[in-house]
Amino acid sequence: MTKIILGIDPGIADTGFGVIKKEKNCLVCLDYGTIKTSAKASLSDRLEILSCELSKIIKKYQPEIIAVEQLFFCKNVKTALIVGHARGVVLLTAKQHKVNLVEFTPLQIKQAVSAYGKASKMQVQKMVKLLLNMKELPKPDDAADALAAAICAANSI
Amino acid sequence: MTKIILGIDPGIADTGFGVIKKEKNCLVCLDYGTIKTSAKASLSDRLEILSCELSKIIKKYQPEIIAVEQLFFCKNVKTALIVGHARGVVLLTAKQHKVNLVEFTPLQIKQAVSAYGKASKMQVQKMVKLLLNMKELPKPDDAADALAAAICAANSI
Repeated sequence: MTKIILGIDPGIADTGFGVIKKEKNCLVCLDYGTIKTSAKASLSDRLEILSCELSKIIKKYQPEIIAVEQLFFCKNVKTALIVGHARGVVLLTAKQHKVNLVEFTPLQIKQAVSAYGKASKMQVQKMVKLLLNMKELPKPDDAADALAAAICAANSI
Repeated sequence: MTKIILGIDPGIADTGFGVIKKEKNCLVCLDYGTIKTSAKASLSDRLEILSCELSKIIKKYQPEIIAVEQLFFCKNVKTALIVGHARGVVLLTAKQHKVNLVEFTPLQIKQAVSAYGKASKMQVQKMVKLLLNMKELPKPDDAADALAAAICAANSI
C-alpha cells in the first residue's frame, strides 16, 4: 500500500517541506523545498502566506500523514515566540485539511536517518540523499530536515 | 461613526476576548470572555478550537479592528513557544477574515487604560470597568486585558 508523507520544518522566513512516498518498504522523494516569506511583510501577512502555500502542497500531494518536529528548546525567548507562531499555523493548517499529524523529537528524527542522535546538518543531508536514493544533496537544511521528519514517520508506520 | 473593536489576549488554555463599540467618543462593552481549550486535547486540536471559536466571534460582531498585544518576552522558552502557537493562530484567523490588525506593546495598553505603564492586573480590571461604564469588574484577567487592548485601539483611531 502506498502512503504519501509530508514532512515540515516550520520557520517564519523559511519553512522546509519534503514529500515522500512509501511503497512496500521503498521510500521515494516526490518533492521538497522551502516556503519563503519576506521580512518586509508583516508577521500576519507572513503567516497567511505560509498557510496558503502549505495548503497548496497538501492539496497537490494529498498526504496521509504530516510529520513535524517537536520543539522544546530554542536559542532564546524571542526566537521561540516567532517559531511558535509559524509552528502554530502549520499545525492548524494540517488540522484544517484533516490530515493525520505526527510529531517527533529532534532525537527521534536524527536517529531515524542516521542512527545517531547528534548527527550534524551535513550528515542528515547525506543520509536523506542515501535513504531516498536522490541524485543531489537535498538543500537547504530546512528542506533536508523536513524530508528527515517524513522518513521518521515512514519508519513508524 | 460607530466602530467595533475586538481585543484579543492569546493563550493556549485561555484566550481572552473583548468586544467594544466606539460611538463618537463613547466606548461601550458589547461582550467579553475567554475561549478555553482542554489540556487533555492535542495541541493541534486546541489550536483548531481557538481558530473556530475566534471565527465565530468575528462573524458575530464583524469588528473593523482586531487589537492584539505585542509580545517580546515570556517567562521562559517553553512558555514562549506555546504562546507563540496560539498567537500565530490568532493573527492568521484575523487575516483570513480580512480584519485590520493592530498590535500594541504591553506598555501602550496599560498606559491607555491607567496612564501608568506598570499597572497591576487589578488596576487594569478596575480602569476597564470605569472606562466602559461596566457594572461588574471584567473577569478573568485575560478578558480584562483583551478589553484593555481594544480600548487602546479605540483611543488610537
